Amino acid sequence: MKLITLLTDFGETSAYQAQMKGVIYSLCPQVSCIDITHSISAHNIREGAFLLRSAIPYFPRGTVHVGVVDPGVGSERKSIVLATRRHVFVGPDNGLLLPAARLFGDIAAYKITNQALLNHPVSNTFHGRDIFAPVAAHILNGLPFNQIGPRLDVNELVDIPFQKPSVLDDFIIGSVLFIDHFGNIITNISSMQIERFTQPSETLLVQIKDQQLSIPFHKSYDRVNKNELVALVGSSGFLEISMNQGNAAATLNVSSDDMIQLKSTQRPKQLSDNL
Amino acid sequence: MKLITLLTDFGETSAYQAQMKGVIYSLCPQVSCIDITHSISAHNIREGAFLLRSAIPYFPRGTVHVGVVDPGVGSERKSIVLATRRHVFVGPDNGLLLPAARLFGDIAAYKITNQALLNHPVSNTFHGRDIFAPVAAHILNGLPFNQIGPRLDVNELVDIPFQKPSVLDDFIIGSVLFIDHFGNIITNISSMQIERFTQPSETLLVQIKDQQLSIPFHKSYDRVNKNELVALVGSSGFLEISMNQGNAAATLNVSSDDMIQLKSTQRPKQLSDNL
Amino acid sequence: MKLITLLTDFGETSAYQAQMKGVIYSLCPQVSCIDITHSISAHNIREGAFLLRSAIPYFPRGTVHVGVVDPGVGSERKSIVLATRRHVFVGPDNGLLLPAARLFGDIAAYKITNQALLNHPVSNTFHGRDIFAPVAAHILNGLPFNQIGPRLDVNELVDIPFQKPSVLDDFIIGSVLFIDHFGNIITNISSMQIERFTQPSETLLVQIKDQQLSIPFHKSYDRVNKNELVALVGSSGFLEISMNQGNAAATLNVSSDDMIQLKSTQRPKQLSDNL
Repeated sequence: MKLITLLTDFGETSAYQAQMKGVIYSLCPQVSCIDITHSISAHNIREGAFLLRSAIPYFPRGTVHVGVVDPGVGSERKSIVLATRRHVFVGPDNGLLLPAARLFGDIAAYKITNQALLNHPVSNTFHGRDIFAPVAAHILNGLPFNQIGPRLDVNELVDIPFQKPSVLDDFIIGSVLFIDHFGNIITNISSMQIERFTQPSETLLVQIKDQQLSIPFHKSYDRVNKNELVALVGSSGFLEISMNQGNAAATLNVSSDDMIQLKSTQRPKQLSDNL
Repeated sequence: MKLITLLTDFGETSAYQAQMKGVIYSLCPQVSCIDITHSISAHNIREGAFLLRSAIPYFPRGTVHVGVVDPGVGSERKSIVLATRRHVFVGPDNGLLLPAARLFGDIAAYKITNQALLNHPVSNTFHGRDIFAPVAAHILNGLPFNQIGPRLDVNELVDIPFQKPSVLDDFIIGSVLFIDHFGNIITNISSMQIERFTQPSETLLVQIKDQQLSIPFHKSYDRVNKNELVALVGSSGFLEISMNQGNAAATLNVSSDDMIQLKSTQRPKQLSDNL
Repeated sequence: MKLITLLTDFGETSAYQAQMKGVIYSLCPQVSCIDITHSISAHNIREGAFLLRSAIPYFPRGTVHVGVVDPGVGSERKSIVLATRRHVFVGPDNGLLLPAARLFGDIAAYKITNQALLNHPVSNTFHGRDIFAPVAAHILNGLPFNQIGPRLDVNELVDIPFQKPSVLDDFIIGSVLFIDHFGNIITNISSMQIERFTQPSETLLVQIKDQQLSIPFHKSYDRVNKNELVALVGSSGFLEISMNQGNAAATLNVSSDDMIQLKSTQRPKQLSDNL
């Protein structure tokens, strides 16, 4: 099995992703190409990094992931390969790949410099097609990593770490990582943090965008009535604010990167909060 | 050949469908995954059932279809497998799968209960990834159906049958099943019903959304001028109201589930209708 | 390797492309189907022709490309196969395929008339599913071209050639071929024409939509500040007007087919232009 995934901000209306697949199939005919998404918001590296990280744990060992959210294409930013014990990542050195690669422990990073691997002439505006796609295909074909180019120090790669929530005694202050197609508000507050803080069927006091809300914390959407808000641990293991069969983000006017503050209604200390 | 299709309401902007494909390829590396669509309106089981039913007749024997339009995920609704002589269907017991499965005659229904088949930990909000995808892959790998779980009585499954039109002497009262990307208005009136009622190149009197329209009935769009309405039997075998190179649904302000009433201009009885 | 690409104007919300894939996999189980795009503007043959032509150079020898932007479906327009030394093209005779096929030199054109190859009953409104898809699959299976139907004279095929820019001494008058998802304005002015006319890091005087603009000509987006305009040779080899991390087309209110006029600021003759 040879598997490549693609994640880009190209949208659905261009032929750019198809050009990349043409390059890949030309070099590696037995490949299967899986689209993670091509609908990352244009130039939004952080959103791309989040979705790449959320998708890849489910792919088999040996999968090569190509990420192209690349506003710095043609500049001095490096083209890199990150090899881990399970997966390989190919794309720009701008923070897109690192949060996903970190899921698998030790990372060996390489700068792509071997011109023989590339699709020539190499465009200044589309390294996805001319650098990342052919390098990914060569890796699937068994290219030794040391033929890609020189090793890089992982600590010197560009990083945009996901902000971690601040967990205080009675508060958690986090932020919104992503709004999905359903309007589910996916936060950076992990299931472990929330479970330490409250229990299923308790109520959360949530402050978001100057709104003070009491939202029941449940295990699934249907535990509340249609069009009612519900807090739960979503399928990525993070706290989500959702609306049963409705759009929570639109209703609450919430977007990515907005802050969210939680406190439990159940704890003794909260009484003093109200004094 | 091992073929799985996916139909969901996940949209194009998330990584949920990619997570499902990762699970599937991990279990069944030789599979080909075909997207029917991920753009079903959020939570619209009826629209999903219509599109699944319209797509699957063209797929080869042995295809496994996974459907995820699942507002009741995490509730008591069952996870099911419907096995027919040609295809197998995997998804929620909410009416999404049954209209498609019925196309192939006898159905053997199973409740998914075998925990060994699932992707653990099983999320409360994403059974597509943790239950339906792995079960579909195991089926393609040759899993005997009796290892999925207990048989279910098909008559006790949740059903949302497509409304059948009322065919009277000079009238047909039907409804709109689907508006496609071109604005074609696809009704539930079959070619057999319409052919019994009128002839190509005759004119239909159509009442829809309080509008009385005379629409020519033809075999293809181009038989009328650009931006003129035309009635025809579409590629699914149902009556469509279309506009040559235009958008009929937007022009007539018609949506899914709207009623449509037809009468022929050619029949004697219509004279008395006007008395 | 057996590879089919699909390019259509079906959008993402219907099951039409899936029906085509079902037909293809039924006839040719070992195929890989690659979506170029299904988001061509409805009935926009010229846009489809441009994107098909821009995608296919990257695909391996032997690929079969199916194009369906087909407002004349069901009319007298022919269904055709264009065979070249590298690729094969299947679709309507309306100009969609010819610009792509011409990239590979000599074209042998065939009219699809062999009813035994088709998916019956053949719909009057969806030849993509019932004619083009099965013929493409049969070609991948080794069907001799002379069994498709009679040869056609390529000069009698419907053609919509891309307008060529007018290159004068100090002016180039071109037009906009396509606006991509990022808002990049892709013109029909080739890199050879622009390189003969100006140099990287010079400034172009651009007239577009009654706006007179001085735009720096560079090799990549990042050579200007964020939200500043930049002219460059894009990944298809044509002049693009872009905005670094912004949307040039929206900012300048430019659409496909708009005219664009260039003159260099560096040439002696321009002085006299200003007299």
